This record gives sequence, structure tokens and C-alpha cells, in this order.
Amino acid sequence: MDASVTRRGQPCWYKRERVGLDAINDAFLLEGAIYRLLRRHCRAQPYYVHLLELFTETSFQTELGQALDLMTAPPGQIDLNRFTMERYKAIVKYKTAFYSFYLPVAAAMYMAGIDSEEEHNNAKHILLEMGEFFQIQDDYLDCYGDPEVTGKIGTDIQDNKCGWLVVTALGVMTPEQRAELESCYGRHDSVSVEKVKALYNTLQMSTLYHQYENDSYQRLQKLIARHAQNLPHAVFLNFAKKIYKRNK
Amino acid sequence: MDASVTRRGQPCWYKRERVGLDAINDAFLLEGAIYRLLRRHCRAQPYYVHLLELFTETSFQTELGQALDLMTAPPGQIDLNRFTMERYKAIVKYKTAFYSFYLPVAAAMYMAGIDSEEEHNNAKHILLEMGEFFQIQDDYLDCYGDPEVTGKIGTDIQDNKCGWLVVTALGVMTPEQRAELESCYGRHDSVSVEKVKALYNTLQMSTLYHQYENDSYQRLQKLIARHAQNLPHAVFLNFAKKIYKRNK
Repeated sequence: MDASVTRRGQPCWYKRERVGLDAINDAFLLEGAIYRLLRRHCRAQPYYVHLLELFTETSFQTELGQALDLMTAPPGQIDLNRFTMERYKAIVKYKTAFYSFYLPVAAAMYMAGIDSEEEHNNAKHILLEMGEFFQIQDDYLDCYGDPEVTGKIGTDIQDNKCGWLVVTALGVMTPEQRAELESCYGRHDSVSVEKVKALYNTLQMSTLYHQYENDSYQRLQKLIARHAQNLPHAVFLNFAKKIYKRNK
Repeated sequence: MDASVTRRGQPCWYKRERVGLDAINDAFLLEGAIYRLLRRHCRAQPYYVHLLELFTETSFQTELGQALDLMTAPPGQIDLNRFTMERYKAIVKYKTAFYSFYLPVAAAMYMAGIDSEEEHNNAKHILLEMGEFFQIQDDYLDCYGDPEVTGKIGTDIQDNKCGWLVVTALGVMTPEQRAELESCYGRHDSVSVEKVKALYNTLQMSTLYHQYENDSYQRLQKLIARHAQNLPHAVFLNFAKKIYKRNK
């Protein structure tokens, strides 16, 4: 939908010869396979209906996030007025955090017999915060990460992405800097890309990011202490260790 | 996926300005909405999990039918060797009959508390036969229907569709007629289309269709008498009346 060329370092499925738009049906088949797996392995379990609801609901949330993302940065249309922190956080929450962070822990909770709404809301609080941080870190590494370490070359600036760096930069820049950004963002020539990066350096985006990282880490520790009262803290702390301070 | 231009007499959604491939996400959102509706209205009911399974399973079957259809007649590739009656019936069963015929009746059965596998298999027998007939009739009307009555102009010949007429014709034609068909099917010029239609007339496809229609109607009556022992026959007979002998 966003005309991407690669995904996880491989050519996108639809780019393969003889696949093309048949990839749409392939995506539906993969989604359908989830429910066949759940049916085969969990049908007799008391948590079966919870898992069905969790997967259908999470799919819907991810689709809402994708819709918001597509509306915010339609291919070929560059409009930085749409890039607000509120919208950025909504995109991340719906498009990434629910399925990557809440879903796996929630599935385990249901399978362990923990199905109270309160306990799930507590876990959600913590995991959505982690998901948001994860995506912000991803956005930071897209620009500032070492391709030797991350294994990929970032293209968020060229692709007109509504990422954390540009949204944060828009909040702290002068009107003159904004005019400069307007003329360079979402363009593929290396001169424009370097101008955006120079602007980020002038605005000390790296420092702002590390401040954010520390704040988020502190906030997360408090969330875990407060919300994971009946849940093993290790579940969340181990998850946190995997992502904070990572560089790839 | 098949590069269609119109659907139910309207421009395809993806053809609209500013929709394009975002239509893929819109399709997922519509599918997701099914589960939100079921959750909102049926969550407290004993048949809730049956409906969830029915919709996920039927979606998967339809996606399998779509995959088989795409493999059988990829856009731009004309290969009549792929058009067998066995494959035609499999495409129709999976792509159309399950969701259009079995699903609505099965949903009503679950809601009425009828959930035995035997009763569902009985209903499935009848409804898949009806679904197959419905599609064959649709294929017949695409070529022989009156556009004033059907409200659409058929393009199955031009579109290289694996339809009942071409599959049946392939089974009764001479090698010379087949060579003629090979040179005309799936082409958009009106001379080729008219040649295919003339071939169908020579082979008396209209007579073969009406024979099939009568056979199918007799078979269906027997299926209803045999399989709908505990189910109200009127459910199936009313459904049958809606489709047999229709001309639009």
C-alpha cells in the first residue's frame, strides 16, 4: 500500500514475479491460518474464545493504525502540518504497539487463566508504553543507527515518514528552520537528505532522544511497580531489557 | 487482483481517486467489522463461538477459492488446458457457495441452537449444490442473459473466465472447434467474441444448460427430501425458488 520495495531486508512479496496483486489474497490466507491454528490447538481450552477475540480485535486495531498512517502521509503528498505528536502516538499505538507488545503477553495471560479486565488493562498500560518507546527508538535508529549494526539503511526522511524525529523537530524549530525542512523532507536526492540531517543535528535531536529514552525507562519502571501487582514483574522487566539500550 | 473495472454496476473501490491500493486496508477493516458486530450483539449468547468459527472458516474457504481462481486464469495468460470441470466446481464451491449459501443458513442454525455436525453436514450438502447451480446460472446469463433484464453486460469471454460455458463446451467439441476457441477466447475484439458465441450456439450450449438446470433442480429436491429431515424444508425450498428459473 505504501509502495515499499523491501521488507525485513528481503524484496516485498508482491514484487516477486507472478505474485503482484495476488499478494492481497495471500495476506488474507495468512490471517486465516491464525484461526485454523487456534482451532486446531486450543479449541477444547477454556481460553479459546478469549484468544479468538484477542486476535480479531488486535487485527482491527492494527488496520485502524494503518489507515491513520496512510491518511497522514499519502505517497507523493508532503504536508508537515499533519505531523503532530498526538497523531504520531496514535499511529504507533494502533499500528504497532497492540500487536507487537500487548497481544503476545495478553495471549499468555489468557492461557494462564488470567482473564480479568483489570489485570489486562494493567498489562496494557505497561506494554503500550513499551511499544511506543520501541517505535521511537526504531525511528531514531533509522537516522542515527549504524547500518553495520542495524543491518539496514534508513530511508524515513526520503519516504516522508511521520516519525518521532521529524515530529519532535517540528515542535522545537524556528519558522525559518521549518521553511528549510519543508523544502527538503520527503525528497530522494542526497543533498535534501543531508540538509534534513544537518537540521536534526542543529536541533540536537540525539540529545533530545536520549532524554526521552531515560524518561521513558523511568516511567516504565514505575508503571511496572504500580500496575503489575499480581503479575510477575519479570515478564515485563525481561521484555524491557530486550529493547532499552538496544542498538539494532 | 483481477484488474476489474466495475463491481455490481459501480466503479471498483480501488479505482476511486485517492483510494488506490489503500483499498486493501479498507477490505481488512470491513472484515474486522464483522467480528466487532458479532462481539457487540452476540457475545453473551451460547452460539457466539460457533459464529466466530463459522465466519473465520468461511473467510478462509473463500480465500482458497480466490487463490485457485487466480491460479487458473492469471490475467494475460490464456491456457484452456487448465479449464476442467473438476477445477471449475472446486473454484465455485470455495469462492462462492460456502459464503453465499452455507454461511447464512448455518449462522441461523447456530442461532436457533442447532449445532450438531450431522445436521450441518446435511444443510451443507443441499446448500453447496444450490451454490454451484447459482454460479452456473450466473455464467449462463453472462452470455445468454438480456442486459435489459440482468442490468449488466457480460464480459466473461473477453476476461478469459473459467466459466461453465467454456468448460462444458471444451468437453463436447471437436479438435477443430477447440483450435478455433483457442484463437478467440480471452480476447477483447468483438470479432473474436462473436466467434466464441457462434461456437457456443453450434454446440447448443443453451440446450445443454437447460438440461443441466432441470437435472440440478430434480437433484436438489431429492437432496432436500433426504437431508433436511430435521430442518424445515421451507428454508431450502424458498431459497431454491429465489434462484431457479431466475433471469436476472
